[in-house]
Amino acid sequence: MTDLPVIRLRPKSKPQAIRHGFPWVYEDEAVLDRRTRNLQPGSFALLEDAERKPLATVTVNTNSKIVARVMDAAPDAVIDGEWLRTRLTRAYQMRERLYDAPFYRLVHAEADGLPGLIVDRFGDVAVMQPNAAWADAMADQIADALVSVVGVSTVVLNGQGRARSLEGLDERMEVIRGATPAAPVQVQMNGAVYLADVMGGQKTGIFYDQRPNQAFAQRLVSGGDVLDVFSHVGGFGLAMLAAGAESATCVDGSAAALDLAKGGAREMSADSRLTVLQSDAFKALEKLAEEGRQFDVVICDPPAFAPAKQALEAGLRAYERVAKLAAPLVKPGGYLGLCSCSHAVDLTQFRNVSARGIGRGGRRGVLIHSGGAGPDHPTLPQLAETGYLKALFFRLD
Amino acid sequence: MTDLPVIRLRPKSKPQAIRHGFPWVYEDEAVLDRRTRNLQPGSFALLEDAERKPLATVTVNTNSKIVARVMDAAPDAVIDGEWLRTRLTRAYQMRERLYDAPFYRLVHAEADGLPGLIVDRFGDVAVMQPNAAWADAMADQIADALVSVVGVSTVVLNGQGRARSLEGLDERMEVIRGATPAAPVQVQMNGAVYLADVMGGQKTGIFYDQRPNQAFAQRLVSGGDVLDVFSHVGGFGLAMLAAGAESATCVDGSAAALDLAKGGAREMSADSRLTVLQSDAFKALEKLAEEGRQFDVVICDPPAFAPAKQALEAGLRAYERVAKLAAPLVKPGGYLGLCSCSHAVDLTQFRNVSARGIGRGGRRGVLIHSGGAGPDHPTLPQLAETGYLKALFFRLD
Repeated sequence: MTDLPVIRLRPKSKPQAIRHGFPWVYEDEAVLDRRTRNLQPGSFALLEDAERKPLATVTVNTNSKIVARVMDAAPDAVIDGEWLRTRLTRAYQMRERLYDAPFYRLVHAEADGLPGLIVDRFGDVAVMQPNAAWADAMADQIADALVSVVGVSTVVLNGQGRARSLEGLDERMEVIRGATPAAPVQVQMNGAVYLADVMGGQKTGIFYDQRPNQAFAQRLVSGGDVLDVFSHVGGFGLAMLAAGAESATCVDGSAAALDLAKGGAREMSADSRLTVLQSDAFKALEKLAEEGRQFDVVICDPPAFAPAKQALEAGLRAYERVAKLAAPLVKPGGYLGLCSCSHAVDLTQFRNVSARGIGRGGRRGVLIHSGGAGPDHPTLPQLAETGYLKALFFRLD
Repeated sequence: MTDLPVIRLRPKSKPQAIRHGFPWVYEDEAVLDRRTRNLQPGSFALLEDAERKPLATVTVNTNSKIVARVMDAAPDAVIDGEWLRTRLTRAYQMRERLYDAPFYRLVHAEADGLPGLIVDRFGDVAVMQPNAAWADAMADQIADALVSVVGVSTVVLNGQGRARSLEGLDERMEVIRGATPAAPVQVQMNGAVYLADVMGGQKTGIFYDQRPNQAFAQRLVSGGDVLDVFSHVGGFGLAMLAAGAESATCVDGSAAALDLAKGGAREMSADSRLTVLQSDAFKALEKLAEEGRQFDVVICDPPAFAPAKQALEAGLRAYERVAKLAAPLVKPGGYLGLCSCSHAVDLTQFRNVSARGIGRGGRRGVLIHSGGAGPDHPTLPQLAETGYLKALFFRLD
């Protein structure tokens, strides 16, 4: 039926998990013979159970702890341009139903049936992150499918970040279809305008995952002053200016990100209401407290303090410190939003350290909302870890 | 300083929890002398730690496993009309900022600083549930505060349900301010119109907690047919008609609830698009499958199958069965919303049984959204259990 190399599950590993949709095979679960051990990373293979019954079409990468990822539940699938277009069409149709403007995460890896592949859409520009070896090898065919299915004119390959190094992939950054964008791309979201430097990598792109939490934060605004700490290109700050905040103060360590925030505010004719503060966030929080400043809404959306389990304890302490330093900056009756994008920190842990930090900051509060990533970031139910984003909103006495 | 009776924590119980905002003292944590043991349920007392340092003003109910609930962190608080108005004003101001129409949960018990008291607002009508003895005893003063702070003309006391019996309170149902509403009250939410029979008790009122999840479900509609199982007065079905669904089928066991759903649809001029089906929900799901019916969106919002820990296993099986029976009714590429309002079931458990049920129903899906109750249902961070509502939305292949 198929001339693909074969990779077989060990007798003790559970084929039911794969049959029920779990998408990964770890290195200690598979038997690799000489042929499969020498496979080029990103090659396709047939996955069998210990009784040699076919389970799925997989992609193999012996450089990764995840040696095989399910591409297709059909054991005889052919992973080619047509297959890519079919998967991409399904992902695209779902986003088009959910959003009325072409700004969203278009492909969210395993949950969209495209393991390890991330694609963000910024209007006519698609930025793809091929974080698995198969996607890196097939980048040209993926780009063709993006152009034909979605109709984008530019495809940027952003090959940076931790996920790629876990797969043994080198860094890449190139425009593989269309012209290099001359200027930052304008992104419309929640009534705000953001500028995304799609060639600047993760530091200055746009994170779509916070969209529903930024929309929630907008409901807390009734005029007043807001503080957006770890603001990046102004994710929360500009959203709240769009919702009528009298002033927004954005704090970030990156001058480039703050310049983009200012540019977005100009596009919204809101630049007179935006203050940017280039600083280490912890120092800025301490300084604002010394000055006795208080805000109606304070949001802290730090980078992942605990990206992996080894960093859990230190990460939890850092989240607690953010809460402790931020709480005194909230006016009585105001709101504090605390976010974590750490895979290793679960919702209960994050809620507990946040509440403790607020208490140690001398305040009391109630939790009014817990949010996650938007529906353009679907999750396989079997991979609960991918629910990494947590946003907690407190009302403080 | 105070002539209140004193209730004291046992040496081993932790006063820090109370100092950090935990609102309850369980019966095995407190020392009751003859005077406090004979206190009228709902009386106020001074809570002290084992070293006789004052901790808080509490309300005492020796009929309850929770013998004391913190009313005020100040040990010398006077719980009177002015105190009630202050707490109520804070709760009211928060809702007025969040909602542009006077339909919301106005008081959500401990998290609004009013232990055990629930108040839902339906325009000019407030329905209060005094689920703690102090609130039952002070119902008249609470009603006065509702009239003076919020300006409602009618206050209904709905004294039914499980929470009251745990406190040793009898059933009551009476209009304590204003006239008995002559007809069901119209409620506007998410662009839909609902009818609430505020005198019918929990069976035919309105649950405000699902508002954000109903709003999310509206985004999944693009014409098409929707099925709302355990529909009550049409919570999801009418929301989706308001969002442009071609048809909604509401299934519920209660003819009275379905009549109210029809009435709501009439007010929306959408009655020609609504079908109601009075039936046991499980039987209806099986019958629709036999008929080969499929829908673009299916929502199942059952009553609490696991209201307490003893019912956990049976409850999880019931949730799995709902998912298994509902999944085949979803068109390929359509959406399935599964809800649980069981305190004893946590998000991970509910996600797992839902995913398994979908698999046993012969389908695969990805999770696109996990929602909870809206911000008019705040939570004390120290009482994570009160985050009881879970709504999971899956896109099925």
